Amino acid sequence: MQGVVAEALRPLAGPDLRLIGASRTDAGVHALGQVASLHAARLLDPRVVRAALNATLPADIRVLAARAAPSKFDARRTARLKRYAYVLSEAPVASPFLYRYAWRVARPLDVDLMRLGARPLGGERDFSAFQAAAGRDRSPVCTVHSVRIVRRRDLVAVLVSADAFLHHMVRNIVGTLVEVGHRRRPPGWVAEVLTGRDRRRAGRTAPPQGLFLVSVRYPEPLFAGSMDQSQPLRLKL
Amino acid sequence: MQGVVAEALRPLAGPDLRLIGASRTDAGVHALGQVASLHAARLLDPRVVRAALNATLPADIRVLAARAAPSKFDARRTARLKRYAYVLSEAPVASPFLYRYAWRVARPLDVDLMRLGARPLGGERDFSAFQAAAGRDRSPVCTVHSVRIVRRRDLVAVLVSADAFLHHMVRNIVGTLVEVGHRRRPPGWVAEVLTGRDRRRAGRTAPPQGLFLVSVRYPEPLFAGSMDQSQPLRLKL
Repeated sequence: MQGVVAEALRPLAGPDLRLIGASRTDAGVHALGQVASLHAARLLDPRVVRAALNATLPADIRVLAARAAPSKFDARRTARLKRYAYVLSEAPVASPFLYRYAWRVARPLDVDLMRLGARPLGGERDFSAFQAAAGRDRSPVCTVHSVRIVRRRDLVAVLVSADAFLHHMVRNIVGTLVEVGHRRRPPGWVAEVLTGRDRRRAGRTAPPQGLFLVSVRYPEPLFAGSMDQSQPLRLKL
Repeated sequence: MQGVVAEALRPLAGPDLRLIGASRTDAGVHALGQVASLHAARLLDPRVVRAALNATLPADIRVLAARAAPSKFDARRTARLKRYAYVLSEAPVASPFLYRYAWRVARPLDVDLMRLGARPLGGERDFSAFQAAAGRDRSPVCTVHSVRIVRRRDLVAVLVSADAFLHHMVRNIVGTLVEVGHRRRPPGWVAEVLTGRDRRRAGRTAPPQGLFLVSVRYPEPLFAGSMDQSQPLRLKL
Protein backbone atom coordinates (compact mmCIF):
# COMPACT_ATOMS: atom_id res chain seq x y z
CA MET A 1 0.00 0.00 0.00
CA GLN A 2 2.77 2.43 1.00
CA GLY A 3 4.58 1.65 -2.26
CA VAL A 4 1.48 2.42 -4.33
CA VAL A 5 0.97 5.78 -2.60
CA ALA A 6 4.66 6.73 -2.91
CA GLU A 7 4.53 5.91 -6.62
CA ALA A 8 1.42 8.04 -7.10
CA LEU A 9 3.13 10.93 -5.28
CA ARG A 10 6.30 10.90 -7.33
CA PRO A 11 5.12 13.08 -10.27
CA LEU A 12 3.97 15.72 -7.78
CA ALA A 13 6.54 15.50 -5.01
CA GLY A 14 9.67 14.68 -7.00
CA PRO A 15 11.99 11.72 -6.73
CA ASP A 16 13.30 12.43 -3.21
CA LEU A 17 10.08 12.00 -1.26
CA ARG A 18 9.96 10.13 2.02
CA LEU A 19 6.64 8.55 3.00
CA ILE A 20 6.14 7.01 6.46
CA GLY A 21 2.95 5.14 7.35
CA ALA A 22 1.85 5.05 10.99
CA SER A 23 1.20 1.36 10.76
CA ARG A 24 2.30 -1.50 8.55
CA THR A 25 -0.71 -3.23 7.13
CA ASP A 26 -0.34 -6.77 5.84
CA ALA A 27 -2.08 -7.84 2.64
CA GLY A 28 -5.82 -8.26 3.21
CA VAL A 29 -5.87 -5.96 6.25
CA HIS A 30 -8.02 -2.80 6.05
CA ALA A 31 -7.53 0.74 7.27
CA LEU A 32 -10.28 3.22 8.12
CA GLY A 33 -7.85 5.86 9.40
CA GLN A 34 -4.26 5.21 8.38
CA VAL A 35 -1.95 8.22 8.72
CA ALA A 36 1.23 8.83 6.74
CA SER A 37 3.81 11.60 6.81
CA LEU A 38 5.39 12.87 3.63
CA HIS A 39 8.64 14.77 3.35
CA ALA A 40 9.34 16.19 -0.10
CA ALA A 41 11.93 18.56 -1.54
CA ARG A 42 9.17 20.62 -3.19
CA LEU A 43 6.57 22.97 -1.74
CA LEU A 44 3.20 21.21 -1.92
CA ASP A 45 -0.36 22.39 -1.40
CA PRO A 46 -2.15 19.73 0.73
CA ARG A 47 -5.38 20.21 -1.27
CA VAL A 48 -3.53 19.52 -4.50
CA VAL A 49 -1.88 16.43 -2.97
CA ARG A 50 -5.23 15.01 -1.87
CA ALA A 51 -6.91 15.71 -5.21
CA ALA A 52 -4.00 14.35 -7.26
CA LEU A 53 -3.71 11.18 -5.22
CA ASN A 54 -7.44 10.47 -5.31
CA ALA A 55 -7.40 10.96 -9.08
CA THR A 56 -4.61 8.43 -9.63
CA LEU A 57 -4.75 5.87 -6.80
CA PRO A 58 -6.69 2.60 -7.27
CA ALA A 59 -10.27 2.78 -5.89
CA ASP A 60 -9.38 0.80 -2.76
CA ILE A 61 -7.06 3.54 -1.45
CA ARG A 62 -8.37 7.06 -0.82
CA VAL A 63 -6.85 10.08 0.88
CA LEU A 64 -9.50 11.49 3.24
CA ALA A 65 -7.51 14.53 4.35
CA ALA A 66 -4.08 16.08 3.83
CA ARG A 67 -2.52 18.88 5.79
CA ALA A 68 0.79 20.55 6.58
CA ALA A 69 2.61 19.41 9.71
CA PRO A 70 5.75 20.48 11.59
CA SER A 71 8.91 19.05 10.03
CA LYS A 72 9.59 16.90 13.08
CA PHE A 73 6.27 15.07 12.57
CA ASP A 74 6.80 11.37 11.81
CA ALA A 75 3.56 9.43 11.41
CA ARG A 76 5.03 6.30 12.97
CA ARG A 77 7.22 7.65 15.78
CA THR A 78 4.97 10.50 16.87
CA ALA A 79 1.90 8.24 17.20
CA ARG A 80 0.58 8.04 20.76
CA LEU A 81 -2.40 5.71 20.40
CA LYS A 82 -3.67 3.32 17.77
CA ARG A 83 -7.04 1.63 17.63
CA TYR A 84 -7.69 -1.63 15.82
CA ALA A 85 -10.92 -3.56 15.29
CA TYR A 86 -11.15 -7.24 14.41
CA VAL A 87 -14.46 -8.51 13.01
CA LEU A 88 -15.65 -12.10 13.47
CA SER A 89 -18.76 -13.57 11.83
CA GLU A 90 -20.80 -16.50 13.13
CA ALA A 91 -23.01 -16.64 10.02
CA PRO A 92 -23.63 -20.25 8.92
CA VAL A 93 -23.11 -19.23 5.28
CA ALA A 94 -20.30 -16.78 4.39
CA SER A 95 -21.91 -13.55 3.20
CA PRO A 96 -20.68 -12.37 -0.23
CA PHE A 97 -20.69 -8.87 1.28
CA LEU A 98 -18.53 -9.76 4.29
CA TYR A 99 -16.05 -12.43 3.32
CA ARG A 100 -13.38 -9.82 2.63
CA TYR A 101 -14.07 -8.06 5.94
CA ALA A 102 -14.54 -10.71 8.61
CA TRP A 103 -13.21 -14.04 9.84
CA ARG A 104 -16.04 -16.51 9.73
CA VAL A 105 -15.84 -18.89 12.67
CA ALA A 106 -17.93 -22.02 12.39
CA ARG A 107 -19.53 -21.96 15.86
CA PRO A 108 -21.07 -19.27 18.09
CA LEU A 109 -18.69 -17.39 20.39
CA ASP A 110 -19.22 -16.99 24.12
CA VAL A 111 -18.51 -13.28 24.32
CA ASP A 112 -18.65 -13.16 28.14
CA LEU A 113 -15.88 -15.75 28.39
CA MET A 114 -13.83 -13.82 25.82
CA ARG A 115 -14.20 -10.62 27.89
CA LEU A 116 -13.07 -12.46 31.00
CA GLY A 117 -10.08 -13.89 29.15
CA ALA A 118 -9.13 -10.47 27.71
CA ARG A 119 -9.04 -8.72 31.08
CA PRO A 120 -5.34 -9.38 31.92
CA LEU A 121 -4.28 -7.91 28.55
CA GLY A 122 -4.93 -4.36 29.79
CA GLY A 123 -2.06 -2.19 31.05
CA GLU A 124 1.69 -2.19 30.42
CA ARG A 125 2.62 -5.76 29.53
CA ASP A 126 5.24 -7.79 27.68
CA PHE A 127 3.37 -9.07 24.62
CA SER A 128 6.08 -11.46 23.35
CA ALA A 129 3.52 -14.28 23.39
CA PHE A 130 1.50 -12.45 20.71
CA GLN A 131 4.39 -11.30 18.53
CA ALA A 132 4.86 -12.64 14.97
CA ALA A 133 8.57 -13.43 15.25
CA ALA A 134 10.58 -13.02 18.43
CA GLY A 135 12.97 -10.07 18.50
CA ARG A 136 11.70 -8.76 15.18
CA ASP A 137 10.08 -5.67 16.66
CA ARG A 138 11.26 -3.08 19.12
CA SER A 139 10.66 -3.74 22.80
CA PRO A 140 7.81 -6.24 23.27
CA VAL A 141 6.34 -4.06 26.03
CA CYS A 142 3.15 -2.20 25.02
CA THR A 143 0.50 -0.38 27.03
CA VAL A 144 -2.94 -1.64 26.10
CA HIS A 145 -5.55 0.96 27.05
CA SER A 146 -8.58 -1.18 26.38
CA VAL A 147 -9.83 -4.44 24.90
CA ARG A 148 -13.56 -4.30 24.24
CA ILE A 149 -15.64 -7.07 22.72
CA VAL A 150 -18.99 -6.14 21.23
CA ARG A 151 -21.67 -8.17 19.51
CA ARG A 152 -24.22 -7.12 16.88
CA ARG A 153 -26.37 -10.04 15.75
CA ASP A 154 -23.98 -12.68 14.31
CA LEU A 155 -21.01 -10.30 14.18
CA VAL A 156 -18.51 -10.00 17.03
CA ALA A 157 -15.86 -7.25 17.07
CA VAL A 158 -12.72 -7.17 19.21
CA LEU A 159 -11.60 -3.54 19.69
CA VAL A 160 -8.07 -2.94 20.97
CA SER A 161 -6.38 0.38 21.68
CA ALA A 162 -2.73 0.67 22.70
CA ASP A 163 0.26 2.99 22.51
CA ALA A 164 1.97 0.54 20.13
CA PHE A 165 1.41 -2.88 18.59
CA LEU A 166 3.82 -5.69 17.75
CA HIS A 167 3.61 -7.40 14.37
CA HIS A 168 0.47 -9.62 14.21
CA MET A 169 -0.34 -8.73 17.82
CA VAL A 170 -4.07 -8.12 17.33
CA ARG A 171 -4.47 -11.16 15.07
CA ASN A 172 -2.68 -13.38 17.60
CA ILE A 173 -4.75 -12.01 20.50
CA VAL A 174 -7.95 -12.65 18.52
CA GLY A 175 -6.89 -16.19 17.60
CA THR A 176 -6.28 -16.81 21.30
CA LEU A 177 -9.58 -15.26 22.45
CA VAL A 178 -11.49 -17.37 19.89
CA GLU A 179 -10.14 -20.51 21.62
CA VAL A 180 -11.79 -19.19 24.79
CA GLY A 181 -14.97 -18.11 23.00
CA HIS A 182 -15.32 -21.63 21.63
CA ARG A 183 -14.68 -23.11 25.11
CA ARG A 184 -11.67 -25.06 23.96
CA ARG A 185 -9.67 -23.18 26.65
CA PRO A 186 -10.74 -21.54 29.91
CA PRO A 187 -10.54 -17.73 30.22
CA GLY A 188 -7.57 -18.01 32.63
CA TRP A 189 -5.49 -19.56 29.85
CA VAL A 190 -5.03 -16.14 28.18
CA ALA A 191 -3.17 -14.82 31.26
CA GLU A 192 -1.00 -17.96 31.26
CA VAL A 193 -0.12 -17.45 27.59
CA LEU A 194 0.69 -13.78 28.24
CA THR A 195 3.01 -14.42 31.18
CA GLY A 196 4.60 -17.43 29.39
CA ARG A 197 5.88 -15.01 26.68
CA ASP A 198 6.09 -17.91 24.22
CA ARG A 199 4.33 -17.42 20.87
CA ARG A 200 3.95 -21.18 20.43
CA ARG A 201 1.58 -21.40 23.40
CA ALA A 202 -0.91 -18.82 22.05
CA GLY A 203 -3.76 -19.47 19.62
CA ARG A 204 -3.48 -19.30 15.85
CA THR A 205 -2.98 -16.04 13.97
CA ALA A 206 -6.45 -14.85 12.94
CA PRO A 207 -6.63 -14.30 9.16
CA PRO A 208 -5.92 -10.77 7.86
CA GLN A 209 -9.30 -9.92 6.32
CA GLY A 210 -11.03 -9.29 9.68
CA LEU A 211 -8.54 -6.64 10.80
CA PHE A 212 -9.11 -2.88 10.54
CA LEU A 213 -6.77 -0.08 11.63
CA VAL A 214 -9.41 2.30 12.96
CA SER A 215 -7.45 5.41 13.94
CA VAL A 216 -4.09 6.81 15.01
CA ARG A 217 -3.81 9.59 17.57
CA TYR A 218 -1.05 12.17 17.95
CA PRO A 219 -0.23 14.69 20.69
CA GLU A 220 -2.40 17.65 19.68
CA PRO A 221 0.13 20.51 20.23
CA LEU A 222 2.11 19.10 17.32
CA PHE A 223 -0.51 20.48 14.97
CA ALA A 224 -1.31 23.69 16.83
CA GLY A 225 1.89 25.37 15.61
CA SER A 226 2.92 26.61 12.20
CA MET A 227 1.00 25.16 9.25
CA ASP A 228 3.10 26.58 6.43
CA GLN A 229 3.20 24.30 3.46
CA SER A 230 6.93 23.81 3.25
CA GLN A 231 6.35 21.36 6.07
CA PRO A 232 5.70 17.64 5.56
CA LEU A 233 2.13 16.59 5.01
CA ARG A 234 -0.09 14.48 7.17
CA LEU A 235 -2.27 12.24 5.02
CA LYS A 236 -5.35 10.64 6.48
CA LEU A 237 -5.88 7.57 4.28
CA MET B 1 -25.04 -15.10 -12.26
CA GLN B 2 -27.76 -17.56 -13.31
CA GLY B 3 -25.30 -19.19 -15.72
CA VAL B 4 -22.70 -19.67 -12.99
CA VAL B 5 -25.24 -21.30 -10.64
CA ALA B 6 -26.62 -23.54 -13.39
CA GLU B 7 -23.08 -24.67 -14.23
CA ALA B 8 -22.35 -25.45 -10.57
CA LEU B 9 -25.60 -27.46 -10.37
CA ARG B 10 -24.93 -29.62 -13.41
CA PRO B 11 -22.79 -32.34 -11.76
CA LEU B 12 -25.49 -32.78 -9.11
CA ALA B 13 -28.71 -32.20 -11.02
CA GLY B 14 -27.81 -33.67 -14.38
CA PRO B 15 -27.80 -32.03 -17.80
CA ASP B 16 -31.55 -31.38 -18.07
CA LEU B 17 -31.89 -28.90 -15.22
CA ARG B 18 -34.00 -25.76 -15.56
CA LEU B 19 -33.06 -22.83 -13.33
CA ILE B 20 -35.28 -19.73 -13.16
CA GLY B 21 -34.22 -16.64 -11.20
CA ALA B 22 -36.93 -14.38 -9.75
CA SER B 23 -35.16 -11.35 -11.05
CA ARG B 24 -32.61 -10.60 -13.71
CA THR B 25 -29.67 -8.80 -12.19
CA ASP B 26 -27.40 -6.78 -14.45
CA ALA B 27 -23.63 -6.88 -13.95
CA GLY B 28 -22.63 -4.91 -10.86
CA VAL B 29 -26.07 -5.18 -9.24
CA HIS B 30 -26.30 -6.98 -5.86
CA ALA B 31 -28.84 -9.36 -4.36
CA LEU B 32 -29.48 -9.87 -0.66
CA GLY B 33 -32.40 -12.22 -1.25
CA GLN B 34 -32.59 -13.53 -4.82
CA VAL B 35 -34.79 -16.60 -5.26
CA ALA B 36 -34.45 -19.24 -7.99
CA SER B 37 -36.46 -22.32 -8.85
CA LEU B 38 -34.74 -25.47 -10.04
CA HIS B 39 -36.38 -28.30 -11.97
CA ALA B 40 -34.19 -31.38 -12.36
CA ALA B 41 -34.75 -34.92 -13.62
CA ARG B 42 -33.11 -36.33 -10.48
CA LEU B 43 -34.28 -36.50 -6.88
CA LEU B 44 -32.28 -33.97 -4.89
CA ASP B 45 -31.87 -33.34 -1.17
CA PRO B 46 -32.09 -29.54 -0.62
CA ARG B 47 -29.40 -29.71 2.09
CA VAL B 48 -27.02 -31.40 -0.32
CA VAL B 49 -27.81 -28.84 -3.02
CA ARG B 50 -27.05 -25.95 -0.68
CA ALA B 51 -23.81 -27.50 0.61
CA ALA B 52 -22.60 -28.53 -2.86
CA LEU B 53 -23.30 -25.11 -4.37
CA ASN B 54 -21.63 -23.23 -1.52
CA ALA B 55 -18.57 -25.46 -1.87
CA THR B 56 -18.18 -24.78 -5.60
CA LEU B 57 -19.62 -21.32 -6.31
CA PRO B 58 -17.32 -18.26 -6.31
CA ALA B 59 -17.29 -16.42 -2.95
CA ASP B 60 -19.56 -13.63 -4.22
CA ILE B 61 -22.52 -16.01 -4.68
CA ARG B 62 -23.89 -17.98 -1.73
CA VAL B 63 -27.02 -20.11 -1.30
CA LEU B 64 -28.62 -19.08 2.01
CA ALA B 65 -31.38 -21.69 1.95
CA ALA B 66 -32.73 -24.43 -0.30
CA ARG B 67 -36.01 -26.26 0.03
CA ALA B 68 -38.47 -28.40 -1.87
CA ALA B 69 -41.39 -26.63 -3.54
CA PRO B 70 -44.51 -27.69 -5.44
CA SER B 71 -43.78 -28.49 -9.11
CA LYS B 72 -45.87 -25.53 -10.28
CA PHE B 73 -43.57 -23.13 -8.41
CA ASP B 74 -41.75 -20.78 -10.79
CA ALA B 75 -39.52 -18.26 -9.00
CA ARG B 76 -40.25 -15.57 -11.57
CA ARG B 77 -43.94 -16.06 -12.40
CA THR B 78 -45.11 -16.94 -8.90
CA ALA B 79 -43.46 -13.87 -7.32
CA ARG B 80 -45.99 -11.46 -5.78
CA LEU B 81 -43.75 -8.72 -4.40
CA LYS B 82 -40.15 -7.65 -4.88
CA ARG B 83 -38.23 -5.14 -2.86
CA TYR B 84 -35.23 -3.21 -4.16
CA ALA B 85 -32.91 -0.76 -2.41
CA TYR B 86 -30.71 1.81 -4.15
CA VAL B 87 -27.87 3.33 -2.14
CA LEU B 88 -26.52 6.83 -2.81
CA SER B 89 -23.47 8.34 -1.11
CA GLU B 90 -22.79 12.04 -0.61
CA ALA B 91 -19.28 11.46 0.78
CA PRO B 92 -16.79 13.99 -0.61
CA VAL B 93 -14.22 11.19 -1.09
CA ALA B 94 -15.36 7.78 -2.42
CA SER B 95 -14.95 5.24 0.36
CA PRO B 96 -12.88 2.18 -0.62
CA PHE B 97 -15.47 0.16 1.33
CA LEU B 98 -18.47 1.54 -0.53
CA TYR B 99 -17.54 2.26 -4.12
CA ARG B 100 -18.87 -1.13 -5.22
CA TYR B 101 -22.12 -0.64 -3.27
CA ALA B 102 -23.25 2.94 -3.79
CA TRP B 103 -23.56 5.67 -6.39
CA ARG B 104 -21.54 8.61 -5.19
CA VAL B 105 -23.26 11.87 -6.12
CA ALA B 106 -21.13 14.96 -5.89
CA ARG B 107 -23.57 17.22 -4.02
CA PRO B 108 -25.93 16.77 -1.03
CA LEU B 109 -29.44 15.54 -1.85
CA ASP B 110 -32.60 17.26 -0.64
CA VAL B 111 -34.39 14.16 0.61
CA ASP B 112 -37.66 16.00 1.34
CA LEU B 113 -37.91 17.14 -2.28
CA MET B 114 -37.15 13.60 -3.46
CA ARG B 115 -39.97 12.24 -1.27
CA LEU B 116 -42.35 14.80 -2.69
CA GLY B 117 -41.29 13.89 -6.23
CA ALA B 118 -41.67 10.14 -5.58
CA ARG B 119 -45.25 10.40 -4.29
CA PRO B 120 -47.04 9.96 -7.68
CA LEU B 121 -45.08 6.77 -8.35
CA GLY B 122 -47.19 4.80 -5.85
CA GLY B 123 -50.09 2.63 -7.06
CA GLU B 124 -50.89 0.95 -10.38
CA ARG B 125 -49.14 2.99 -13.05
CA ASP B 126 -47.75 2.71 -16.55
CA PHE B 127 -43.97 2.90 -16.03
CA SER B 128 -42.98 3.15 -19.73
CA ALA B 129 -41.07 6.34 -18.91
CA PHE B 130 -38.71 4.33 -16.67
CA GLN B 131 -38.30 1.27 -18.90
CA ALA B 132 -34.91 0.42 -20.47
CA ALA B 133 -36.20 -0.22 -24.00
CA ALA B 134 -39.82 0.29 -25.07
CA GLY B 135 -41.81 -2.87 -25.61
CA ARG B 136 -39.00 -5.08 -24.40
CA ASP B 137 -40.82 -6.21 -21.27
CA ARG B 138 -44.29 -7.48 -20.63
CA SER B 139 -46.99 -4.90 -19.93
CA PRO B 140 -45.44 -1.67 -18.65
CA VAL B 141 -48.08 -1.47 -15.91
CA CYS B 142 -46.78 -2.25 -12.41
CA THR B 143 -48.23 -1.71 -8.96
CA VAL B 144 -45.74 0.09 -6.75
CA HIS B 145 -46.59 -0.51 -3.10
CA SER B 146 -44.14 1.96 -1.65
CA VAL B 147 -41.24 4.26 -2.40
CA ARG B 148 -39.39 5.22 0.76
CA ILE B 149 -36.33 7.43 0.97
CA VAL B 150 -34.20 7.20 4.10
CA ARG B 151 -31.01 8.94 5.15
CA ARG B 152 -28.26 7.75 7.46
CA ARG B 153 -25.46 10.32 7.70
CA ASP B 154 -24.08 10.79 4.17
CA LEU B 155 -25.89 7.76 2.75
CA VAL B 156 -29.35 7.99 1.17
CA ALA B 157 -31.32 4.87 0.26
CA VAL B 158 -34.31 4.69 -2.10
CA LEU B 159 -36.46 1.65 -1.19
CA VAL B 160 -39.04 0.49 -3.74
CA SER B 161 -41.47 -2.40 -3.43
CA ALA B 162 -43.74 -3.49 -6.29
CA ASP B 163 -45.49 -6.52 -7.73
CA ALA B 164 -43.16 -6.37 -10.75
CA PHE B 165 -40.39 -4.23 -12.17
CA LEU B 166 -39.48 -3.32 -15.73
CA HIS B 167 -35.87 -3.57 -16.88
CA HIS B 168 -33.80 -0.72 -15.32
CA MET B 169 -36.95 0.66 -13.66
CA VAL B 170 -35.41 1.32 -10.24
CA ARG B 171 -32.21 2.74 -11.71
CA ASN B 172 -34.21 5.07 -13.99
CA ILE B 173 -36.45 6.18 -11.12
CA VAL B 174 -33.38 6.90 -8.97
CA GLY B 175 -31.67 8.83 -11.77
CA THR B 176 -34.83 10.92 -12.06
CA LEU B 177 -35.21 11.49 -8.31
CA VAL B 178 -31.56 12.60 -8.07
CA GLU B 179 -32.38 15.41 -10.52
CA VAL B 180 -35.01 16.56 -8.01
CA GLY B 181 -32.73 16.00 -4.99
CA HIS B 182 -30.13 18.22 -6.63
CA ARG B 183 -32.79 20.86 -7.41
CA ARG B 184 -32.16 20.74 -11.12
CA ARG B 185 -35.87 19.84 -11.52
CA PRO B 186 -38.90 20.55 -9.33
CA PRO B 187 -40.64 17.62 -7.57
CA GLY B 188 -43.66 17.91 -9.90
CA TRP B 189 -41.45 17.01 -12.86
CA VAL B 190 -41.44 13.31 -11.81
CA ALA B 191 -45.24 13.11 -12.32
CA GLU B 192 -44.83 14.80 -15.72
CA VAL B 193 -42.20 12.25 -16.76
CA LEU B 194 -44.40 9.37 -15.55
CA THR B 195 -47.50 10.47 -17.43
CA GLY B 196 -45.44 11.36 -20.53
CA ARG B 197 -44.45 7.66 -20.82
CA ASP B 198 -41.34 8.67 -22.78
CA ARG B 199 -38.02 7.28 -21.51
CA ARG B 200 -36.13 10.16 -23.10
CA ARG B 201 -37.75 12.67 -20.75
CA ALA B 202 -36.65 10.91 -17.55
CA GLY B 203 -33.30 11.28 -15.77
CA ARG B 204 -30.23 9.19 -16.46
CA THR B 205 -30.00 5.51 -15.56
CA ALA B 206 -28.32 5.34 -12.15
CA PRO B 207 -25.22 3.10 -12.26
CA PRO B 208 -25.66 -0.58 -11.32
CA GLN B 209 -23.44 -0.78 -8.22
CA GLY B 210 -25.93 1.05 -5.96
CA LEU B 211 -28.77 -1.42 -6.62
CA PHE B 212 -29.73 -4.31 -4.32
CA LEU B 213 -32.52 -6.84 -4.79
CA VAL B 214 -33.60 -7.09 -1.15
CA SER B 215 -36.28 -9.78 -1.18
CA VAL B 216 -38.92 -11.61 -3.21
CA ARG B 217 -42.25 -12.65 -1.70
CA TYR B 218 -44.51 -15.52 -2.75
CA PRO B 219 -48.08 -16.46 -1.79
CA GLU B 220 -47.51 -18.49 1.37
CA PRO B 221 -49.93 -21.42 0.68
CA LEU B 222 -47.62 -22.45 -2.16
CA PHE B 223 -45.17 -23.75 0.41
CA ALA B 224 -47.64 -25.12 2.93
CA GLY B 225 -48.33 -28.21 0.81
CA SER B 226 -46.25 -31.26 -0.01
CA MET B 227 -42.51 -30.90 0.49
CA ASP B 228 -41.35 -34.15 -1.07
CA GLN B 229 -38.00 -33.82 -2.72
CA SER B 230 -38.95 -34.85 -6.20
CA GLN B 231 -40.30 -31.33 -6.41
CA PRO B 232 -38.30 -28.38 -7.72
CA LEU B 233 -36.15 -26.54 -5.23
CA ARG B 234 -36.42 -22.99 -4.03
CA LEU B 235 -32.99 -21.48 -3.58
CA LYS B 236 -32.56 -18.36 -1.50
CA LEU B 237 -29.36 -16.84 -2.87
